[in-house]
Amino acid sequence: MLPTVSTIPLRHMASGDVLSLQVYKFIGAHPGKKVYIQSNLHGAEIVGNAVIHQLIEFLQAVNDTDLLGEIWLVPVCNPMGTNARSHIFSSGRYCVYEAKDWNRIFWDYEKDTDDLLAFANSQINFDPKVVRRNYLTAIKQKFDKLLEKIHSPSGSPYTQRFSSKLQSLSLDADYLIDLHSHTNQGLNYLYFFRNREESAKYFLLQFGIQLDTYDGDAFDEAFIKPWLALEECFKQLGREMRFDVEAWTLELGTGMQMNPDSVEKGIRGVKNYLAQKGVLRISGFPIESTSHEMSLKLKTVVKKYYAPTGGMIQSRVELGNSVKAGERLYQVLNFNKEGKLPTVIDVSAEEDGLVYDLCSNQAVNEGEFVLAIIG
Amino acid sequence: MLPTVSTIPLRHMASGDVLSLQVYKFIGAHPGKKVYIQSNLHGAEIVGNAVIHQLIEFLQAVNDTDLLGEIWLVPVCNPMGTNARSHIFSSGRYCVYEAKDWNRIFWDYEKDTDDLLAFANSQINFDPKVVRRNYLTAIKQKFDKLLEKIHSPSGSPYTQRFSSKLQSLSLDADYLIDLHSHTNQGLNYLYFFRNREESAKYFLLQFGIQLDTYDGDAFDEAFIKPWLALEECFKQLGREMRFDVEAWTLELGTGMQMNPDSVEKGIRGVKNYLAQKGVLRISGFPIESTSHEMSLKLKTVVKKYYAPTGGMIQSRVELGNSVKAGERLYQVLNFNKEGKLPTVIDVSAEEDGLVYDLCSNQAVNEGEFVLAIIG
Amino acid sequence: MLPTVSTIPLRHMASGDVLSLQVYKFIGAHPGKKVYIQSNLHGAEIVGNAVIHQLIEFLQAVNDTDLLGEIWLVPVCNPMGTNARSHIFSSGRYCVYEAKDWNRIFWDYEKDTDDLLAFANSQINFDPKVVRRNYLTAIKQKFDKLLEKIHSPSGSPYTQRFSSKLQSLSLDADYLIDLHSHTNQGLNYLYFFRNREESAKYFLLQFGIQLDTYDGDAFDEAFIKPWLALEECFKQLGREMRFDVEAWTLELGTGMQMNPDSVEKGIRGVKNYLAQKGVLRISGFPIESTSHEMSLKLKTVVKKYYAPTGGMIQSRVELGNSVKAGERLYQVLNFNKEGKLPTVIDVSAEEDGLVYDLCSNQAVNEGEFVLAIIG
Amino acid sequence: MLPTVSTIPLRHMASGDVLSLQVYKFIGAHPGKKVYIQSNLHGAEIVGNAVIHQLIEFLQAVNDTDLLGEIWLVPVCNPMGTNARSHIFSSGRYCVYEAKDWNRIFWDYEKDTDDLLAFANSQINFDPKVVRRNYLTAIKQKFDKLLEKIHSPSGSPYTQRFSSKLQSLSLDADYLIDLHSHTNQGLNYLYFFRNREESAKYFLLQFGIQLDTYDGDAFDEAFIKPWLALEECFKQLGREMRFDVEAWTLELGTGMQMNPDSVEKGIRGVKNYLAQKGVLRISGFPIESTSHEMSLKLKTVVKKYYAPTGGMIQSRVELGNSVKAGERLYQVLNFNKEGKLPTVIDVSAEEDGLVYDLCSNQAVNEGEFVLAIIG
Repeated sequence: MLPTVSTIPLRHMASGDVLSLQVYKFIGAHPGKKVYIQSNLHGAEIVGNAVIHQLIEFLQAVNDTDLLGEIWLVPVCNPMGTNARSHIFSSGRYCVYEAKDWNRIFWDYEKDTDDLLAFANSQINFDPKVVRRNYLTAIKQKFDKLLEKIHSPSGSPYTQRFSSKLQSLSLDADYLIDLHSHTNQGLNYLYFFRNREESAKYFLLQFGIQLDTYDGDAFDEAFIKPWLALEECFKQLGREMRFDVEAWTLELGTGMQMNPDSVEKGIRGVKNYLAQKGVLRISGFPIESTSHEMSLKLKTVVKKYYAPTGGMIQSRVELGNSVKAGERLYQVLNFNKEGKLPTVIDVSAEEDGLVYDLCSNQAVNEGEFVLAIIG
Repeated sequence: MLPTVSTIPLRHMASGDVLSLQVYKFIGAHPGKKVYIQSNLHGAEIVGNAVIHQLIEFLQAVNDTDLLGEIWLVPVCNPMGTNARSHIFSSGRYCVYEAKDWNRIFWDYEKDTDDLLAFANSQINFDPKVVRRNYLTAIKQKFDKLLEKIHSPSGSPYTQRFSSKLQSLSLDADYLIDLHSHTNQGLNYLYFFRNREESAKYFLLQFGIQLDTYDGDAFDEAFIKPWLALEECFKQLGREMRFDVEAWTLELGTGMQMNPDSVEKGIRGVKNYLAQKGVLRISGFPIESTSHEMSLKLKTVVKKYYAPTGGMIQSRVELGNSVKAGERLYQVLNFNKEGKLPTVIDVSAEEDGLVYDLCSNQAVNEGEFVLAIIG
Repeated sequence: MLPTVSTIPLRHMASGDVLSLQVYKFIGAHPGKKVYIQSNLHGAEIVGNAVIHQLIEFLQAVNDTDLLGEIWLVPVCNPMGTNARSHIFSSGRYCVYEAKDWNRIFWDYEKDTDDLLAFANSQINFDPKVVRRNYLTAIKQKFDKLLEKIHSPSGSPYTQRFSSKLQSLSLDADYLIDLHSHTNQGLNYLYFFRNREESAKYFLLQFGIQLDTYDGDAFDEAFIKPWLALEECFKQLGREMRFDVEAWTLELGTGMQMNPDSVEKGIRGVKNYLAQKGVLRISGFPIESTSHEMSLKLKTVVKKYYAPTGGMIQSRVELGNSVKAGERLYQVLNFNKEGKLPTVIDVSAEEDGLVYDLCSNQAVNEGEFVLAIIG
Repeated sequence: MLPTVSTIPLRHMASGDVLSLQVYKFIGAHPGKKVYIQSNLHGAEIVGNAVIHQLIEFLQAVNDTDLLGEIWLVPVCNPMGTNARSHIFSSGRYCVYEAKDWNRIFWDYEKDTDDLLAFANSQINFDPKVVRRNYLTAIKQKFDKLLEKIHSPSGSPYTQRFSSKLQSLSLDADYLIDLHSHTNQGLNYLYFFRNREESAKYFLLQFGIQLDTYDGDAFDEAFIKPWLALEECFKQLGREMRFDVEAWTLELGTGMQMNPDSVEKGIRGVKNYLAQKGVLRISGFPIESTSHEMSLKLKTVVKKYYAPTGGMIQSRVELGNSVKAGERLYQVLNFNKEGKLPTVIDVSAEEDGLVYDLCSNQAVNEGEFVLAIIG
């Protein structure tokens, strides 16, 4: 099965050059779900490009009769982020012009709508498929207003133009997967949303973090929040409704790297998820779920540690270690400019947990991130 | 009258060097209001440093018997911002590590409190001064929790440490003035909050913009929102209450400059405000208010124009001009890399208004800011 | 006369996007000199784009019989520089990856050749046109080695790839014009090389600075140095030889701006130069040279002033003013973090001269540029 | 033995804050050589700070009678570099204001002197110690002129002020050690200069690279070049002269890290060198030189590989591997925006050698560094 490949102009630069998106679409012989997968939204988080590349290779060897629905793939989905450099580093986590994180800029229908409860009420007796279609229509109508504003003489800032391009590709997806990694050094895990625990496990990763609080306007959030909100409205009205709409952010290891182990875990997870969801019929998948135990946590139990003073980090616990409250996590080798000898300061864990993220830079100014622990 | 000058360590850097704040306090012979004035929160917005310097010079020549209350002055209040450079430019509008605007990081008690209405109810029959004291106590107790978190082993990111330092100096002020300018090129005006129109005029500037919508966690907002919210609660409970608490952001011209005209307008405005408020008894002030007409607008009538494509801006309307809907605002000289001749694109005003801000950079990538108009 | 327009791929980015150059060539009906004009090599120096755009418009109205030779125009010649942003600023003066000034990266044949004197000796009795042809052949042969290295498996850094692209377009030009401006605020003037004083005056600018010392590997330098060196060799061998090969860098005002006065002066200068050189036959040109007095100076008499300490610049002399030795040039408003009042420091001129460049940023860290004076 | 610790103001910032150097001096009971050791000249190269910290700890336990001469230690010797951040990264390899590599800014007496041969001739019959003293006096006299310029009203750019501060501390040293690492990922090795092969081996590292060509104005170069040049002059005059003046740059592993193995190798090397040189009498040192084989190479046999196109680096050889000519070094996963499938490009070794440096960032724009091999 060959994909259709389309190139979409994204940004006209001051120099007259144009940056573009490129979408690879695999269309199954049978109708079904729409899966949307992108990578490299943050400039340093490149690992997903290898995952998508290998998926493109893999899917070409699959018969279209074994794909139910369609899979849209958008690697290097943020050229401004991917190409940004500061010295040798991939500094493209945020738009340097607007000072906005590239993953906190997406349009959230829930914030832009007035009376979701009334809408739910109007659909209370409808078939879920009809509700989904009607709701999607409502979302798109509102989204079109955003596009109108973008094309008015006063226009819109680039982050809005950019986010609207990615959202116009993905707004009507059923399953959305955003491939990230830590900018720093991290384990392989995922973020998920409430009532999607079962599907989370299909990704076969070490653990998952439930976004019980929102970061605000992230890609996955902006996609799924309107559906979660509508489910909540139905619940208030006494009807249990669960849309088969899911959003995932996979964190595959370490920034600026495409670690083979992380790539392999990413591909395996995506294949297994798609097989479990009935999108792909491929040999070897789904993998017996009993063979894998994935631990699920709430985001609110994450504790991040920030340097209490400036200096050099040494004697730090290792990535993947478990620590006990009171145990030393790291030292700061602390220099001064007051004629005194350097000192070494110990920092200890406040609570038990797993060390799942480490800063890559072992020099810190006061208040810079050192490590993160999940309880 | 000489100020007391105190130096407050702000950030211990990786190199062992320490950045500090320095506060100049003029204390009157009579008790009265506390006025807090800072400058240069955004790195490029330096004009307020000259205003504060000249106020320091001026106040030294004032007798302490002519100052009722106290005036705290904090120039260069954000060393990370002031000292930042990218090539020759003052790029310090945001924390490059956290990608946060230095003026969108402040702690907002209103967001952190549960039941403001209950508090208002508990104070419904109290004298306003008592309410103010009680409310300030409640705010400070909550603020202390923030400080506790900062000093815990897990600590806090620098933007939180920094903002808490400035807020610990200013939380109990009666009048707060934050001296900014446009990063780009701008007129002299101010931002104000609801029910403070009369005082706004004391600053004798060309116009004022009322923050009827919030940017979120700005310094002035975070200071005054809790008081506005409490006023609103009292209103709901049937009592009109107006605290003599005010927050102002003055915009004094153009970034990276200390334009003498903007400096002079800033000093004149601050002196007149303090004289009108009864804080200073100085000759020549207050100036007859009838001699000055200041126009007040809502922030929601501001329209910002963003480049529809990349290129070079030419034939643009001038700062301070009034434009009519449909009138040409600027042209984009648009290059391409498709073997075609360059083109010139006209952009016209959507609505009538005053051109009060222009981008300094006449080269734009698609979606970059070009100018702003207030209706 | 219509130009031929060709697009040349320049850089393949990590995201798969490609940045390009675009060359506009006007070919005369008669053979003659090759003129090469480019603009915007430094990201903030955009004024030349308007000059080239207006030349493109102008030349379309000229008959090809009035053009002797050809004119190649390359606006926005450095997309990496033009599109770079740090906050709102055009920070693209240098390659942030290699930390190299975009105008100090060019290949200089003089440094790459062994025995220029032997070459001169071998041509001692030849006609200048023959010598020019033979020397150009030698230069190109050496240049081809550079291209070979670039296309070898080990490749070359981007600055070398980029500079070789611009040099492959311009190496065989007779007259080369590089359109710059100050990154900061500057007057309109030019840089020129020895024995080209007469032609310098054709540009009708306020003054010219002779590059009696080299900055090293600048575009104009790298182009003309081999010819100056060969002239010098001939001189040593007792033959006066002057090639009609010329290189010019025009400085047209202020960074990030396309000031109409600077644009106009740039166009007038280029037209007059081309008319004087016999490349263009156009009405109104050449302008009577007696009507304009251009002062020519040596680069070694330029004195740049750097801040003696950190602070805010105020009371500075204005651009275009003449100053006397001992006269105050500017003040630094100097803050401290030692509990003392701010101070104001005067800085005076060491020598008489014309203030021809000012820093745009009136905040300075110690050792940052404040202004430049030419004696 | 306790060090004397002195703090030297380095730079007054725009905000009024001051950055400083701090020097730790251990003075032996016996006269002898002066050893100067600094670390962290490039912002990301922090490993030497741990080496110096451990040396400070170690030397406190040494009796002053076991130190012949003195050891000056300057950790975090470049606060502007150490504290610089771009997103989470240590981007401080160069001065962002001047676009100059912090290690290509040092004053080189050899370039600033006229007639070294005449000086050598004037000293031709003198005792080497006298020649050293006289030459050092000549160097210092010239250096004082530089300081005069810095303190004149026109002043000097910061890179000159900064470099002069470090050189005023080290100009009269006998042995100078500059502790670096790769900004990227690297092995542990050193750079050395001609005729110092024997001493190079004292550092017990895997290999050494002789700087047979200069980078220009690096710290080690600027220190030793005048002495090598004088040796060369004596040689021309028929006298073999070898000054016991040595300069070393140690490369200890990977940027932004203080890898314990690299730290340990650094400390062991420095201790052994100082013991071999007779500066320190410490137990266990010097280590038997026969136990270690260090390979010495010329810098001209280094081959660096730059990406032939943009994309993602995969399947790369590992650090420390030996490769044969023709062997695949790495692949580029190459995306496009032309509607085509991604491609994978192989890059092969031009020559045999050891892979001693790798880029940390596996995403590359065309022309970015991928790896380095030494033959």
